[in-house]
Amino acid sequence: MRNIKLTIEYDGTRYLGWQRLGNSEKTIQGKIENILTQMTGTKIEIIGSGRTDAGTHARGQIANFKTDSKMMLAEMIDFLNRYLPRDIVVKKVEEVPERFHARYNATGKKYSYHVWNNEIPSAFERHYSFQFSQELDIDLMNEACRKLIGSHDFIGFSSLKKTKKSTVRTIDELSIQQEGSMLHFTFVGNGFLYKMVRIIMGTLLEIGTGTLELGVIDEVFENKIRSDAGMTVPSQGLFLDEVYY
Amino acid sequence: MRNIKLTIEYDGTRYLGWQRLGNSEKTIQGKIENILTQMTGTKIEIIGSGRTDAGTHARGQIANFKTDSKMMLAEMIDFLNRYLPRDIVVKKVEEVPERFHARYNATGKKYSYHVWNNEIPSAFERHYSFQFSQELDIDLMNEACRKLIGSHDFIGFSSLKKTKKSTVRTIDELSIQQEGSMLHFTFVGNGFLYKMVRIIMGTLLEIGTGTLELGVIDEVFENKIRSDAGMTVPSQGLFLDEVYY
Repeated sequence: MRNIKLTIEYDGTRYLGWQRLGNSEKTIQGKIENILTQMTGTKIEIIGSGRTDAGTHARGQIANFKTDSKMMLAEMIDFLNRYLPRDIVVKKVEEVPERFHARYNATGKKYSYHVWNNEIPSAFERHYSFQFSQELDIDLMNEACRKLIGSHDFIGFSSLKKTKKSTVRTIDELSIQQEGSMLHFTFVGNGFLYKMVRIIMGTLLEIGTGTLELGVIDEVFENKIRSDAGMTVPSQGLFLDEVYY
Repeated sequence: MRNIKLTIEYDGTRYLGWQRLGNSEKTIQGKIENILTQMTGTKIEIIGSGRTDAGTHARGQIANFKTDSKMMLAEMIDFLNRYLPRDIVVKKVEEVPERFHARYNATGKKYSYHVWNNEIPSAFERHYSFQFSQELDIDLMNEACRKLIGSHDFIGFSSLKKTKKSTVRTIDELSIQQEGSMLHFTFVGNGFLYKMVRIIMGTLLEIGTGTLELGVIDEVFENKIRSDAGMTVPSQGLFLDEVYY
């Protein structure tokens, strides 16, 4: 069987997230599977690199599926982008070795989170950023970023229940870029626990406003208590930018 | 009476354009007037610098209105941004001399038009650009821009019927900036006729693909025949960026 890898961009605003639910019409996975099933004439299930929550976006989500279809790759991408809704775009279609698995083989991910930091909101960024008007101490937040980089048990910065699986993850990059009223946060790491980016973001923002102290990071690493960390920021500021293999 | 000047940003995707129609709920002017009427307790009419079409956006539309309200400017902007839909934002509220008129006093405008020039569409730019996949000769288009700059009778590049009023306008700047797959076109001039930016854009794109020749510009200046110019490109790529006084 052929194994096909998809690189997918989506505006998550209208969707319940990546993962197919009963009502497949409202999920990204469901939408893509429906079109692939039409395209190949057989029921297709796709494997995503991981879930994204309702309202979260992707510039480079990866998925794969198996098919006996003889269709050319160029025809596939044309068919997909013709029939998918315009807020889901397949950027690339590639044939990969049969053992390629979009989730198991992922060695890392890049996410970005965007904060509109101005008391006047933005009409254009409303679905693509968290509009947060409080003043922020960027230097202090950069210091907090440096504390988060490296290998740590991030369970306290996640919405996971206690688990036997390891919750140690490595963050290789966590940086802040300012562009006018926009703050762009970049996260690169070997894996991210459920809601980890959004809880780290909430913690960084609360450190930036002075609500939390810098020391909270080491505390949560040690005591693993979710409620000691910051808020979970809204999903619409979050983008899955890239998956590494 | 006080005269209040508003600087307004809007995402025009959901609206029938700037100008209030019978059903005020679907226009930007109607939305803003409704909130101002609630705010002041008396019926308010606002004067915009000019109309924008359905789907067209603004980063710096200007409007003014007269009121006896004693409300402070800071309260006004808070009230407006609290009750306006999130795709309309008042960026600034200023008190101006009573004779200031948003339309009559405008001395120029800056528009931008955005083209996504790639055969793979963009999930994020779909409401904010014209997705145009044909290959473009940018050098030739730059040459065409230079021919359009200056004072000319632009009636052939507009959807206006013949009129006794002058249809001579001056374009001071018309430039193209490339940023990945996006082409940003900037128009600065003392005034723009109905649909003039969109018809010039269509002409530039058709020159860029070779469908029209460079000479078409001088021809249309001379023969004033709308149908000799290029297509009218879609409204969703167009932004009113700034109004000059």
